[in-house]
This record gives sequence, C-alpha cells and structure tokens, in this order.
Amino acid sequence: MKRTLYILILFLFISVTCFAQRPPSIGSPEVHADNSVTFRYYSRTAQKVSVSGEFSPTRIPMTKDTSGIWSVTVPSIKPDIYPYSFWVDSVNLADPNNTYIFANERFKRSIVDVPGNIPLVHSLQNVPHGKLSYRYHKSATLGTTRQLLVYTPPGFNPNGKVKYPVLYLIHGGSDTEETWTKVGRANLIADNLVAQGKAVPMIIVMPYGNVRPAPMADFTKDVMNDIIPFIEAAYPVLTDSKYRAVAGFSVGGGQTLNIGLTNTDRFAYVCSYAPFTQTEEFQKNFGPNYSPNADAVNKQLKLFTISVGTEDFLYEPVKKNIAFFEGKGLKVKSYIIPGGHTWMNCKQYLAKTLQEIFK
Amino acid sequence: MKRTLYILILFLFISVTCFAQRPPSIGSPEVHADNSVTFRYYSRTAQKVSVSGEFSPTRIPMTKDTSGIWSVTVPSIKPDIYPYSFWVDSVNLADPNNTYIFANERFKRSIVDVPGNIPLVHSLQNVPHGKLSYRYHKSATLGTTRQLLVYTPPGFNPNGKVKYPVLYLIHGGSDTEETWTKVGRANLIADNLVAQGKAVPMIIVMPYGNVRPAPMADFTKDVMNDIIPFIEAAYPVLTDSKYRAVAGFSVGGGQTLNIGLTNTDRFAYVCSYAPFTQTEEFQKNFGPNYSPNADAVNKQLKLFTISVGTEDFLYEPVKKNIAFFEGKGLKVKSYIIPGGHTWMNCKQYLAKTLQEIFK
Repeated sequence: MKRTLYILILFLFISVTCFAQRPPSIGSPEVHADNSVTFRYYSRTAQKVSVSGEFSPTRIPMTKDTSGIWSVTVPSIKPDIYPYSFWVDSVNLADPNNTYIFANERFKRSIVDVPGNIPLVHSLQNVPHGKLSYRYHKSATLGTTRQLLVYTPPGFNPNGKVKYPVLYLIHGGSDTEETWTKVGRANLIADNLVAQGKAVPMIIVMPYGNVRPAPMADFTKDVMNDIIPFIEAAYPVLTDSKYRAVAGFSVGGGQTLNIGLTNTDRFAYVCSYAPFTQTEEFQKNFGPNYSPNADAVNKQLKLFTISVGTEDFLYEPVKKNIAFFEGKGLKVKSYIIPGGHTWMNCKQYLAKTLQEIFK
Repeated sequence: MKRTLYILILFLFISVTCFAQRPPSIGSPEVHADNSVTFRYYSRTAQKVSVSGEFSPTRIPMTKDTSGIWSVTVPSIKPDIYPYSFWVDSVNLADPNNTYIFANERFKRSIVDVPGNIPLVHSLQNVPHGKLSYRYHKSATLGTTRQLLVYTPPGFNPNGKVKYPVLYLIHGGSDTEETWTKVGRANLIADNLVAQGKAVPMIIVMPYGNVRPAPMADFTKDVMNDIIPFIEAAYPVLTDSKYRAVAGFSVGGGQTLNIGLTNTDRFAYVCSYAPFTQTEEFQKNFGPNYSPNADAVNKQLKLFTISVGTEDFLYEPVKKNIAFFEGKGLKVKSYIIPGGHTWMNCKQYLAKTLQEIFK
C-alpha cells in the first residue's frame, strides 16, 4: 500500500515536471464507424479554433468544453485519406495528437484516414506486402547525396532470376520523396493491385524531385544520369524501354512530361498527373517550336496519358496541354475524373496507371 | 515577349489562387557556417513569437520585420541534432518551413541539424550505406498488423551465406517506429561505425512499441512471439542468444529491461537507456521479490548496461535501478554521461552500444 502510494506520487511528480507544458492526452482525430470524424485540440487561451480539411470546402468551427478541449464532429466523410490542419486564432498548424503528417517542405498538415466498410485501393489489406526501402544515392548532376524510396513487390528476390519493370514516380512541387507513400500510399496501392492480379509486380522508385532553379532540365539529368544507373546497378530490373515508366503529380507531372518526352527511347510509358507547366522552362521544350516526329514517338510510347480532375485549379491549362500534344500528332490518352488538385485524386491516377503499364 | 507576359500573368494568377493562404517562401532553419542558426516564421497578426529548442534552456524571443517575418539568430550551437518548436502567442507548433519532423504521437516538433566541421557519429558521410526497410508484420499477440523498420547493413545479401546478428531497438513512450531513424539516425550511426570497423555489420529492427495498457507484458509477448519469428523467417540471421541484443530509450528502456531480463536465454545483450520504470507493471516483475539466479544470468548476459545523463529528469530513479540490479547480484555496466532525457543523448548511448555488442 505504502509502495503503491510512493509510486503514484513519484509518477505524478515525473508527469508534472516532465510534461508540464504538454496538453492532456486527447485522441484526435477519432474516426467513427459511421465515417464521421471528431477532431480535438487543447487550448485554454485560444479565442477561436477551427479545422480546415480537404473533406470540406470551408473551415469548420470547433467549440470548447470546460476542460479546454475544442472539438467538432464532422458527419459522414466519404472514405478516403484527407489532409487537414487546425486554425488556432490566426495560426495554422498540424494536429499535435496525430502521428500522420503530410510530408511537405512548405506546410505542416496532418492526414486522416476514413477507411469505410469496403476496402479501398489504398487500404492496408490482408495481402502479401512489398517492402519500402529508404536509400541514399549520389547525384553527380547535383553534386550531393539524396534520399530516394524504393518499393519492391511481395516475393521480390534481389538475387533471383526474375527481373522487374520499374516505375519512376515523382511527387508534387513542395512535397518530398516520402509524399507518394505517406500520403499517396503508393506501396499499398501496388500491394493490393498485384494481389488482385490487376497490376504486374514492379519496382517503384520515388526520388526527391525538388531541384532549383531548373526543376525540369536538372532533374531530368539527375534521373537519366544518376538515379536510373543507381537503380539498375542495385536491383534486378528489365532495361528495355518497354519496362520503364515515369509518372508524377503537379510540378512532378511537368517533370514527367520532360523526362518522358525527351527520352522516348528510354520510357515507353509517360503518365502525367495534373501537370504544372506554366513555366518558361516548360515553354522552352514544349513551346510552338516543339516538333516531335509524331509517328516515331507514337511507336515508342505504349502509353502517354495526362490525368486531371474537373475541379483541379489546373483543369483548363491541362486541357490545353492535352490539346497541344494532340496538335503535334501525339497519341494522348486523357483521364479526366471529378476532384481537385489533391492527393485523393493522385491515388486514383496512380491506381489507373499501375493497371495499364508493363502489359 | 507577349508569350512571356502571358505566362507571367498566368503564373501569378495560379500562385495567388492556389497559394493565397500560404506564407511567403522563407528558409527556416538556416544553419550558418559558424554554427549559428536563424529561425524564421511568418505572421502578420501574432503579438509574440519565440523559438523553444533543446539547444537552449529558455525560449528565445523572435522579432518581426516589416514584411511580417519573425526571426532570431541563435549563436554558435554545439553541433548536434536538436528538436525545437515555435510558440506563436500561446500556440506551440512545428516550423512550417522545415521538412524534418520529430516522429511522435503527442507533439509536433521540428528538428535542426547543426553539422559542424568535423563529421559526427550520426552525420551522413561518404561511406557505404545500409538500407532501411519499412515492413508490415502481423502481431497475433496484439491482433493487428503493425509497421516496423529494418536496417540492413551495407553489402547485405538476403540470400547469401552470411548470417547477421540482430539488435532490437525500441523508441520512447510517445515516439513511433520512425523516431530511432528520423531523430536518432540509427541507420547512419551504424553505417559510420561499420565503415570505421568499430561495429560489426548487423541488422537493426525498430518495432512500434506503444502497447496499452501493458507496455511491458504485452510488448514483450509481441517481440518474442511475433516480431522475432517474423524477422528470423524473413532475414538471414544468427539465432543463438549471443547474436541477439535489445536496447531502448525511456519507456522503451523499461521495455528493454523486461524483454531482456525475462529472456536471458534469448538475449545476451540488454542495453537500457534512461529507462522509465515508475510503473506498477515494472514493480510486479522487478520489485523486492525479484530473485534472479544471478550467477546463471551473469553467465548468459555478455553485456547488461544502463545509460543515463546526469541532467536527465530520471537520473536519480535510474541510479536506483542500477543499484537495485546490482543488489540482486547482476553485473550492470553503467554508462553515465552529461546531458538530459534527450535524443542527443540517445545517439551517444546507441553509438556506445553498437561498439560493444556482438564481439
């Protein structure tokens, strides 16, 4: 009895001294069975707290209880993974109680997974899982060592006789090499589609694509001269162009067009998602003077696709991109679906791509 | 000319519509050659902004310039990796412009790397790098699928003749399976020590250790019955106890003691860092009735070490832990260094351990 009391006092003492500045342990977000989600944030001093998430066009006000916990329950959110953040008075921040952070260089948002009852293409399902490896590679082009992620499929054997096709998959403008997995769940999408027999087992390479000041020219060099040789030396891969694909989102969608269309002898699949192309660098390569040998390129490319959402802020420019490449005689397959310039859409673009390439 | 103007206007339009709520692109933290660091945060409305980091015992006020950017330059910080956050009025948040986040479930802090001139044990150096793999494993004990990280050393061949020793390395109480690499740089510490011949090539397994309500009993079962079998089936590892080690920090240090000392036939190395042991669960196993066969245990354990910093808030209880185990006749090697209950210290504890195990 005495000992229990002693331990309790010691524990309280430690809790107070060590965690004095910390809020009480609260669960946020709490996803309910009916797909409603409760968000919580602790502050005794804030005047106004709201949640801003891609599940809602407007900020949703939260209300404070007597213990200083602000909360709101958002009803029936469509199952998906959504970025969100809190506004505390005029400060925007990630949910302190949520481990899952949107991997990004410019903002800190949290992500909430509303799983729903039916497994989605990105859900963690009871199927064999591939491996996600974090690797360092030297870039002679950029004069530095950078990190990239490599997904290898279930059953992958680095020394076996099976050789694999490779998809190079590029994140958006201020994202990082982790965004395609942390937010886009590229690894789980691949696991699920392979398990369903809808995609062939492949290696997916997710490099860090932010290169300044020339994200197209310099990153294309990095991919061609550093990343591809690194991967092809380290993994058992098929090296014919029909086993090599490139895809990317937003700024990475622009990079995808540059990497793929300036190297059609190396990539048979070029899949650009909501590309951001309003740059002088893009115009240099793909301005009015761009004159591909359309017949030759159409023979080399087994798939050239541009995806975009009808609510994407780039919808109109992307439609112009598609018309432009069509005007040059290239066979472009467009994939236009509802939705905005979001990672909810990205997952759909990728799921579509994985089912179409290397077949 | 007309086209350039058009592009410029379009770009500005997109920037404004898409990024309207975003602050200007500012660099933070900026680490200077003299080890001073400039922190920056944008807010036109805040009354008071400060930076709180483990490089300083007190919050450091920042001042606002006419463009709304708050900043402060902290002089000559001792080279290391430090967690920090901003206080904006009464809101605590991670640095929005810093990609590197402290992997944790309860708070969101950023980390700043002050490299210094001499490579540190955790620096990214020009040496062969191992691979860090993110894996899913099923836990029958916990009835769920969890993620763990596996570091394999440079030159690792999953199908080769070489078999490796394994260190199971556990994070602190509210940390995640990523904290030992994202904050503790366990992979780079291993790369560097292996390159210098100071550590033997080994596999390091970093599971997710947060288990409630019984972090010791249930996690020990998870490690023994699920994680070890998963690793030993998937990797070429040596399975004699002298090739198996367990180490962990804080709550993970308490788990380490429980896992190791209740399984001395399976682990020859038990390395506990600043263990948090003020729990009833710990007292149950290691209270006054704990009566190990000291001679037998001392023969089984090639290394039993408890590390702590002299400024650690657990310094006194950890000293009592050491005295307690010594009082039971166990050979405990204590490693006491300056510093607090921090990941700066964790890196040193791990570096020490890696040089002592499997030899």
